[in-house]
Amino acid sequence: MLGRILDAAHHAPSVGFMQPWNFMLIRSDEVKRGVQTLFAKANEEAAQMFESEKARLYQQLKLEGIMASPLNICITCDSEKAGPVVLGRTHDKAMDLYSTVCAVQNLMLAARAEGVGTGWVSIFDKAELKKLLNLPEHVTPVAYLCLGYVDFFYQKPELESVGWRKRLAVEEQVMFDRWDNQESDNEENQALLDELIRRSESE
Amino acid sequence: MLGRILDAAHHAPSVGFMQPWNFMLIRSDEVKRGVQTLFAKANEEAAQMFESEKARLYQQLKLEGIMASPLNICITCDSEKAGPVVLGRTHDKAMDLYSTVCAVQNLMLAARAEGVGTGWVSIFDKAELKKLLNLPEHVTPVAYLCLGYVDFFYQKPELESVGWRKRLAVEEQVMFDRWDNQESDNEENQALLDELIRRSESE
Repeated sequence: MLGRILDAAHHAPSVGFMQPWNFMLIRSDEVKRGVQTLFAKANEEAAQMFESEKARLYQQLKLEGIMASPLNICITCDSEKAGPVVLGRTHDKAMDLYSTVCAVQNLMLAARAEGVGTGWVSIFDKAELKKLLNLPEHVTPVAYLCLGYVDFFYQKPELESVGWRKRLAVEEQVMFDRWDNQESDNEENQALLDELIRRSESE
Repeated sequence: MLGRILDAAHHAPSVGFMQPWNFMLIRSDEVKRGVQTLFAKANEEAAQMFESEKARLYQQLKLEGIMASPLNICITCDSEKAGPVVLGRTHDKAMDLYSTVCAVQNLMLAARAEGVGTGWVSIFDKAELKKLLNLPEHVTPVAYLCLGYVDFFYQKPELESVGWRKRLAVEEQVMFDRWDNQESDNEENQALLDELIRRSESE
């Protein structure tokens, strides 16, 4: 099953067919403990950044499953994987990072389809994480994922369910031709907005 | 159908449930022409960066469908959408960009499931693209997509089919516990490698 999940990730699209990702499978308790320590340190800093109600709620949230999950996967981006000049990356150096995220999203969707839960942990000092995992300078740890079977899946995103932040109305995220133009001026766009409003309301 | 595709994109996971994306639907020939001009300029610069055989092949590749496709979508990332402090973005400012790419990947998968082709155009001066589309300073154009029905879908990625670059063996992208450790030292990891090798060979 893990083979299917990783293969789905590896079949993500990538700029210049660069395939810049690597999948570091972490099962070692020693490494996981090191990562958990980095999380705890950063998370304490993060908790201080929220005020009153939000700070209280923040501290109740489950933001990692590093030790609890049997498998952690660090998905990295190797910017040198396809040499110095990459088709499609000539004018936007972030394109290799974006490609790596396509692999992350494929992996998360494939895992969910297999009934496996994933959590993306992002609260680390990334320089310290790189050091802990021996990553070379030109390699970026894009996503640190915890994988495992879960007691249940939320029907809605966890942060929505606990009242952290609401889902935005999809029709309000749409613009036409230029920034800030949200008025449709033709039937096609109006029909689309009507459909999106129907979808927002039925959620 | 476009409603379903955009709704799938909007249901991507995001850091702190930030939903930092906007979907700019571009049907105006005037705007598309402007974008096409930016592409042509950048692509001429890009073509100079490749040598001999590669340069010849580069110039034969279809790297955009801006005017040919009925709909272009620019997916942007608004870093101020959820206020100054975002849960999960406190220690990695790129997390909102990564979330936006999750929406891009959802959109591309949903479009493909509907029988619609997508192409991600990345060869632009991004500052000029921002200006053309009136994007505010804090908004990043993450992906510029061309959507439409296509004559056929390649069985393999186009760049693989035309011999630009080979698919890497998935088992060679896997590491265990730390960078550069590609040797399995337990049955679980060995079984995974065997399965991945089987998948590579049967491709």
